[in-house]
Amino acid sequence: MTKKTAVGLVGVTGYTGMELARLLAGHPFLDLVRATSRQDAGKTLAEIYPFLNGSSLGRLDITRPETRDLASACELVFLAVPHKTAMVLADELLDAGLRVVDLSADFRLTDPKVYQAWYGVEHTCPQRIPEAVYGLPELYREQVKAARLVANPGCYPTSAILGLYPALAEGLVHTEDIVVDSKSGTTGAGRKAVLATAFCEVQDSFRAYALGRHRHTPEIEQECSKIAGREVVLSFNTHLLPINRGILSTIYTRLKVRADSEDIRAAYERRYANEPWVRVLPQGALPETRWVRGTMYCDIGLAADPRTQRLVIVTAIDNLCRGASGQALANANDMLGLPEDAGLGMAPLMP
Amino acid sequence: MTKKTAVGLVGVTGYTGMELARLLAGHPFLDLVRATSRQDAGKTLAEIYPFLNGSSLGRLDITRPETRDLASACELVFLAVPHKTAMVLADELLDAGLRVVDLSADFRLTDPKVYQAWYGVEHTCPQRIPEAVYGLPELYREQVKAARLVANPGCYPTSAILGLYPALAEGLVHTEDIVVDSKSGTTGAGRKAVLATAFCEVQDSFRAYALGRHRHTPEIEQECSKIAGREVVLSFNTHLLPINRGILSTIYTRLKVRADSEDIRAAYERRYANEPWVRVLPQGALPETRWVRGTMYCDIGLAADPRTQRLVIVTAIDNLCRGASGQALANANDMLGLPEDAGLGMAPLMP
Amino acid sequence: MTKKTAVGLVGVTGYTGMELARLLAGHPFLDLVRATSRQDAGKTLAEIYPFLNGSSLGRLDITRPETRDLASACELVFLAVPHKTAMVLADELLDAGLRVVDLSADFRLTDPKVYQAWYGVEHTCPQRIPEAVYGLPELYREQVKAARLVANPGCYPTSAILGLYPALAEGLVHTEDIVVDSKSGTTGAGRKAVLATAFCEVQDSFRAYALGRHRHTPEIEQECSKIAGREVVLSFNTHLLPINRGILSTIYTRLKVRADSEDIRAAYERRYANEPWVRVLPQGALPETRWVRGTMYCDIGLAADPRTQRLVIVTAIDNLCRGASGQALANANDMLGLPEDAGLGMAPLMP
Amino acid sequence: MTKKTAVGLVGVTGYTGMELARLLAGHPFLDLVRATSRQDAGKTLAEIYPFLNGSSLGRLDITRPETRDLASACELVFLAVPHKTAMVLADELLDAGLRVVDLSADFRLTDPKVYQAWYGVEHTCPQRIPEAVYGLPELYREQVKAARLVANPGCYPTSAILGLYPALAEGLVHTEDIVVDSKSGTTGAGRKAVLATAFCEVQDSFRAYALGRHRHTPEIEQECSKIAGREVVLSFNTHLLPINRGILSTIYTRLKVRADSEDIRAAYERRYANEPWVRVLPQGALPETRWVRGTMYCDIGLAADPRTQRLVIVTAIDNLCRGASGQALANANDMLGLPEDAGLGMAPLMP
Repeated sequence: MTKKTAVGLVGVTGYTGMELARLLAGHPFLDLVRATSRQDAGKTLAEIYPFLNGSSLGRLDITRPETRDLASACELVFLAVPHKTAMVLADELLDAGLRVVDLSADFRLTDPKVYQAWYGVEHTCPQRIPEAVYGLPELYREQVKAARLVANPGCYPTSAILGLYPALAEGLVHTEDIVVDSKSGTTGAGRKAVLATAFCEVQDSFRAYALGRHRHTPEIEQECSKIAGREVVLSFNTHLLPINRGILSTIYTRLKVRADSEDIRAAYERRYANEPWVRVLPQGALPETRWVRGTMYCDIGLAADPRTQRLVIVTAIDNLCRGASGQALANANDMLGLPEDAGLGMAPLMP
Repeated sequence: MTKKTAVGLVGVTGYTGMELARLLAGHPFLDLVRATSRQDAGKTLAEIYPFLNGSSLGRLDITRPETRDLASACELVFLAVPHKTAMVLADELLDAGLRVVDLSADFRLTDPKVYQAWYGVEHTCPQRIPEAVYGLPELYREQVKAARLVANPGCYPTSAILGLYPALAEGLVHTEDIVVDSKSGTTGAGRKAVLATAFCEVQDSFRAYALGRHRHTPEIEQECSKIAGREVVLSFNTHLLPINRGILSTIYTRLKVRADSEDIRAAYERRYANEPWVRVLPQGALPETRWVRGTMYCDIGLAADPRTQRLVIVTAIDNLCRGASGQALANANDMLGLPEDAGLGMAPLMP
Repeated sequence: MTKKTAVGLVGVTGYTGMELARLLAGHPFLDLVRATSRQDAGKTLAEIYPFLNGSSLGRLDITRPETRDLASACELVFLAVPHKTAMVLADELLDAGLRVVDLSADFRLTDPKVYQAWYGVEHTCPQRIPEAVYGLPELYREQVKAARLVANPGCYPTSAILGLYPALAEGLVHTEDIVVDSKSGTTGAGRKAVLATAFCEVQDSFRAYALGRHRHTPEIEQECSKIAGREVVLSFNTHLLPINRGILSTIYTRLKVRADSEDIRAAYERRYANEPWVRVLPQGALPETRWVRGTMYCDIGLAADPRTQRLVIVTAIDNLCRGASGQALANANDMLGLPEDAGLGMAPLMP
Repeated sequence: MTKKTAVGLVGVTGYTGMELARLLAGHPFLDLVRATSRQDAGKTLAEIYPFLNGSSLGRLDITRPETRDLASACELVFLAVPHKTAMVLADELLDAGLRVVDLSADFRLTDPKVYQAWYGVEHTCPQRIPEAVYGLPELYREQVKAARLVANPGCYPTSAILGLYPALAEGLVHTEDIVVDSKSGTTGAGRKAVLATAFCEVQDSFRAYALGRHRHTPEIEQECSKIAGREVVLSFNTHLLPINRGILSTIYTRLKVRADSEDIRAAYERRYANEPWVRVLPQGALPETRWVRGTMYCDIGLAADPRTQRLVIVTAIDNLCRGASGQALANANDMLGLPEDAGLGMAPLMP
């Protein structure tokens, strides 16, 4: 048996940290040797996550995050900590020679002024931005393989960009009339003691939030602009679903081509022909979040409407797996020369 | 104590029938004397709805729908049967001198050709269409009071039209760039033994359906066109929520006025100033389906976005109460000269 | 129109306070004139409960709890505050001449030593215990009518005691072999920012808690002992359901009579013959929490098992309405000489 | 790469068939070459299960169940068909030389008269009963390895027997006073178009069913009697949870030893010391269904109550994986000489 590569996870107590632990528990080539948390240091992983009882991972001691300790033990570190904290840690770990996959927003935006405008804090590590690669495999796989720092995409942006990519790249839709209506499961709000996401405040209800003001907006616009080759400003709007996992985005575009054109589906199938994790659904089929639960799949449904000359694109991903930890793991696999899908090749849990 | 007015309910076994039974159980002026169902005739209401045990309504015998019997016993009849069946019954009951509130789609569209195009069947009772009043109290209250036949609005149209009314009536938004993204609780799919709405096929999941093709589209367009004074063609799209009750519609419009204009909120507050069931939420607040559960309220939130010069309107209603049976009851109250809110004055059930 | 009686509510921000607000919003004879909360004083009720927007109750200002102010404004006060706090307030309010319905546990147990043993704190107001009436209408209605202080029963005890009452009163079952297996909706855990009851920690899951150690145990035993005329020690065990409202208790007893005896059902029907809120379900039917949602009903199903000579009693109540605020309101009605069901006569919200 | 063993699945359209498909999609040594369904023959697996799109399994054509065809193509067949149908097929497939794992109840009961009494039909294949091995690995692993026919345990019995095994085997509890109170997720009711398990009939509600009359009763009693060495008659009672997967059983026993005895936990830890899939939780911890979601784990919590001298045992399993298809796969692995956990070594999906 080949020796496994040692990796670390900074910030194990949130849902993205929990999901990385789940995925790493069964990874054939990676060995989680450090899991850190300021609040839970001293406990074992199984003490905070009883579902890991009985696995070797469950016996891992949680430590406090120390750069020197991480550097001595790991080759690569996942950062599952809040933005602003992440950039400081990433800088230190890169200086210490490690590779870093940052799940926060700190290195996703190429313009630190845009970062400051939307996140309300100054970017204190702008010199690292140029070397960060935006870790969406379908768009940047080759750059990821050579990267030392990967900015792991946000959950909503993953669902929006993958949905818009073929339409924008092939110039099928107008760039100035795009609306993204996204709905996310409640894990997207993080693992916190907050009344607004208490069970009885969410169950059997549905609500919108942050309309037009969500921080993922500039990330979607940045990547869509790159794809389209011109500046894209769009309307991005979010809702909270009473489900655990999943994002479904309904994306409204105005067609340049005829609605019954065969170009539309052909473009999607061609652009994703070799992408194992993007499934363009058959004509008439529309995605459901349960069909991608726990996996890296992004399902895409297409509905062209001749009455309004619109193309409605629907995408579904698992916000924790494809939208965060699974994608982070795929990026780590690519950075380390492993098969991209190592530890990720599972069928969805249905129902 | 005044004598109550006798009413009948044709089609008691669906969710709209069930909801009418719930509301009529506590109505101060109406007495449900007939409840019909072909499949459950011979049972009492409590046998099929154990939650009515202990109420006098629970002891009512379910009968088969017979026009003569209904005519002899009732002054007004609610039709909670499928479209196509409803038009036949309505015609007979009107001939027999009764008043009718039809919860189906049969008399909502003024043009029978549009009906045929979207419902796929011929309208066999077009001569009754002109006398039917579209029963949305905020728009047609006075006509309802004089009506013998009320076409009760669809659930989605109620949420869309109430959201768009002030914006269109005051010319605040362009009429050719409207997208309605609606999400409905599963009672909207009816009370049927169908795998697609089985618990384990809906729970912890979310999906889109009938994009651009939902039958409520022409109803929304017809009423919006009347309000705007010009033909409105819009994109209407629907999703299924893993909740029992509630519709939340996120409506995307493009502003003619400036996004920070005070005209927007003022128009909404003015248009609904005397409407007890429409609540224009304070600046910054957005609706949640739980806040209207079990009631006639339509909550409206407004988010103007200067970046995209759009107005996003969010509405929430209870699809069974406001979107069907409660509204039918309000219409019946109006038709019978009773207080419009008789039997309807309750606070939402929270949580 | 008769003048309404002024009442106050101390502790409006929890789920029981929210439920009392819902019920009082439609009460024909009571007027909520004070609603207090230390944390939300200065806001209106509608600001913290948007579902009350548009009602006169929504405009009520939340105040800080001041005995003098309450005494000057109210005739009766509901205490929806934590145990230990409640006993202090109750004492002051009674001294000031008010009537008090205490929703906490402070005056439910007749023996202060038992209180101290289970609640871990000393009872500082034992002199008030003798005058407190345990507010279960079916058992103590007449005493409630004369009471100045009512100890409102706990949610679990209501479901257990009503289920066991006929069996114990008629000596149908052995008193030393009773197991109560209760399952509660998550509102029972209170309205708090706590990770253990966050949506994603409860949704699509189920768990047991506090087996054999729940604080409602002595309350159940005290009342069952009174009914049976001998000391009853039983096993009481609780579980958390991923639903908002409802308690279903499955109660295991060993029969003294034959399992097929007609005495069993007859005893239940006789004991509850004149009780409008207790529904002994027909043979073969078993309760469901949705059939009592939002109401005062306690549904009871009986299953006698000849193989094991056991009687399994199943009860369902709404933990917030029957198990707390609705029952408190019924007690207030009785104390004030109003019809017991004033403001409470509604059909369940189904589904 | 070694050649995989060809297996077949008769009855792919139910939840147990779906779960077997999920598990076999990632199995390293087994190749699903036949999946049958009378109603869906002619479609591909991905057509009925869109979550299998993109996997090779998704392209498998569904066929009609033909013994000759199955015999020519497979070495082992899983039967996921209703009882009564299963016994006929099993007999034919065994005659044709195949190994069979039967997920139905047809070969679980050793006495055909007991089968007839509880299932209401005659057993037409009693001669096969003696060779069938009850496939609970912790009790019968060695016999399974040599078996040609395995009777896969029921979901409820798995949760009850594993919970009671150490207590009964070590004589810690009385055998005549056992109550099993089980709660199951709705997948346990099967994948059918039935109103009783429609979303809006289950969501936000909870109910009991089949108290004292569930068909799994004799299966639990048979195995408990074998373990205890004397006839065990117990009270078994079931409830329906508004969750997809999971069974939690709360088992009430009366202790022979002292409640604070160290023997209790020691017995459980000793009996399951080498069992990777049974996790005896630390003192004070109680199982939750989410901690075992999608896995073979059976979590066990123990609560001894000195007040009542009872031992309350709580077990949690995934009813589809441990309670049906995963256990069937473990049995197939054992029968084929493969590692028992092949294809089953995953961490739970949390949340």
